[in-house]
Amino acid sequence: MGKLAGVLIIGNEVLSGKVQDANSPFFARALRDLGVDLRRITVVPDEVEVIAAEVRAFARAYDFVFTSGGVGPTHDDVTIEAVAHAFGRAVVREPTLERVLREFYRARITEAHLKMAEMPEGGELVGADSLVFPVIAFRNIYIFPGIPEILRQKFLAVQERFRDAPFQLQQVYVDMDEGDLADALHAVLREFPALQIGSYPEMNAPGYKVKVTIEAKERAPVDGAVARLRALLPARAIVRVD
Amino acid sequence: MGKLAGVLIIGNEVLSGKVQDANSPFFARALRDLGVDLRRITVVPDEVEVIAAEVRAFARAYDFVFTSGGVGPTHDDVTIEAVAHAFGRAVVREPTLERVLREFYRARITEAHLKMAEMPEGGELVGADSLVFPVIAFRNIYIFPGIPEILRQKFLAVQERFRDAPFQLQQVYVDMDEGDLADALHAVLREFPALQIGSYPEMNAPGYKVKVTIEAKERAPVDGAVARLRALLPARAIVRVD
Repeated sequence: MGKLAGVLIIGNEVLSGKVQDANSPFFARALRDLGVDLRRITVVPDEVEVIAAEVRAFARAYDFVFTSGGVGPTHDDVTIEAVAHAFGRAVVREPTLERVLREFYRARITEAHLKMAEMPEGGELVGADSLVFPVIAFRNIYIFPGIPEILRQKFLAVQERFRDAPFQLQQVYVDMDEGDLADALHAVLREFPALQIGSYPEMNAPGYKVKVTIEAKERAPVDGAVARLRALLPARAIVRVD
Repeated sequence: MGKLAGVLIIGNEVLSGKVQDANSPFFARALRDLGVDLRRITVVPDEVEVIAAEVRAFARAYDFVFTSGGVGPTHDDVTIEAVAHAFGRAVVREPTLERVLREFYRARITEAHLKMAEMPEGGELVGADSLVFPVIAFRNIYIFPGIPEILRQKFLAVQERFRDAPFQLQQVYVDMDEGDLADALHAVLREFPALQIGSYPEMNAPGYKVKVTIEAKERAPVDGAVARLRALLPARAIVRVD
């Protein structure tokens, strides 16, 4: 089985509709490209107990857990504390991060700034070879900031450690009502039960009504399913395969 | 305490990065406008057991649960089955929905189409006065389709039943580094512990560095906190309040 991941977004601002979360869509695309199967995205408020319960469950269920948000200098930044709390660890100040912060802020540095040097005891820094401010990891949990530009830069610097066998995907564009297509999809799925087959009606697409996605980690069943679908559907129903 | 909500997005296509979820941002904004406190957004795959476990937990934790996706005619549409399974109910065919479907599809109707007339036993139809195809509700769970245009139309037709006392929000734009602001925010929160105070650094905003959001269901503590923040911060640090 391939690698599984969970994404945990920490942010009152997302739940209250003030900010549209751009990080979970980024993770979804990036993990897919890496061959990692994202199994769950959850958005929770900036609350220690809620975050702690969630990271504990995610860390058990998935190979990789990615958190975003709650890692700045203010009172609402509680992700580090929550991850430490989840595993009964103390929060410690990490010397490398402290040095980077002191070099950046110089005489202006405050205790609040130094909060950004904290990590759960037993954590580690990842990506220190290419990042001035490395990613904090604890067990299989990778802790990212909420600011999308910084999150992306950091993720791209460390992503190779997550890479797995790629997904094989074929997209079949069908000019039929989804209800008329259902039996054929059922039949294909019975023949190739390990496939992930998705059926997505598109209201305003030019020339087709439904996009069918056929996916697996192996190529043969994907190609087999496309061939079977061609045989089952009326001629000209399949507009395009890519 | 105000009303709490959870949003459950059902969709392999979101988790695999094929489609960007537009429904949870819509729910977040709409629920906020209604005075409802959205506590959690979760995205799960099209799998009966996973969805069932989640709706059961959501239904217990929140006043209102909104699901999106998984309600069409094909094999990957398993939301109704999952909600029924979560509460040990059968799936039944609802007569009003069946009639609407038969009138729409006429002679072309298939068993797959009629799957869209199913609901968990004991469920009810909501919004039938203004919607041709009403919303299916079971207990405190409201089941919406994944297609954003249709979801919005349906939600707007039934939203008044969710309305609660409005949130009072003030946004304070501050031209200071977040780290230098942290102590003042802490002090305000100690004085007004029931407030939700958020601190959001904005990298490329014109004229300010941090947006502080101050929020509650009552007006007095919000105004009190803004006044206290004005007193604590240097003159001219607060660029704007709205």
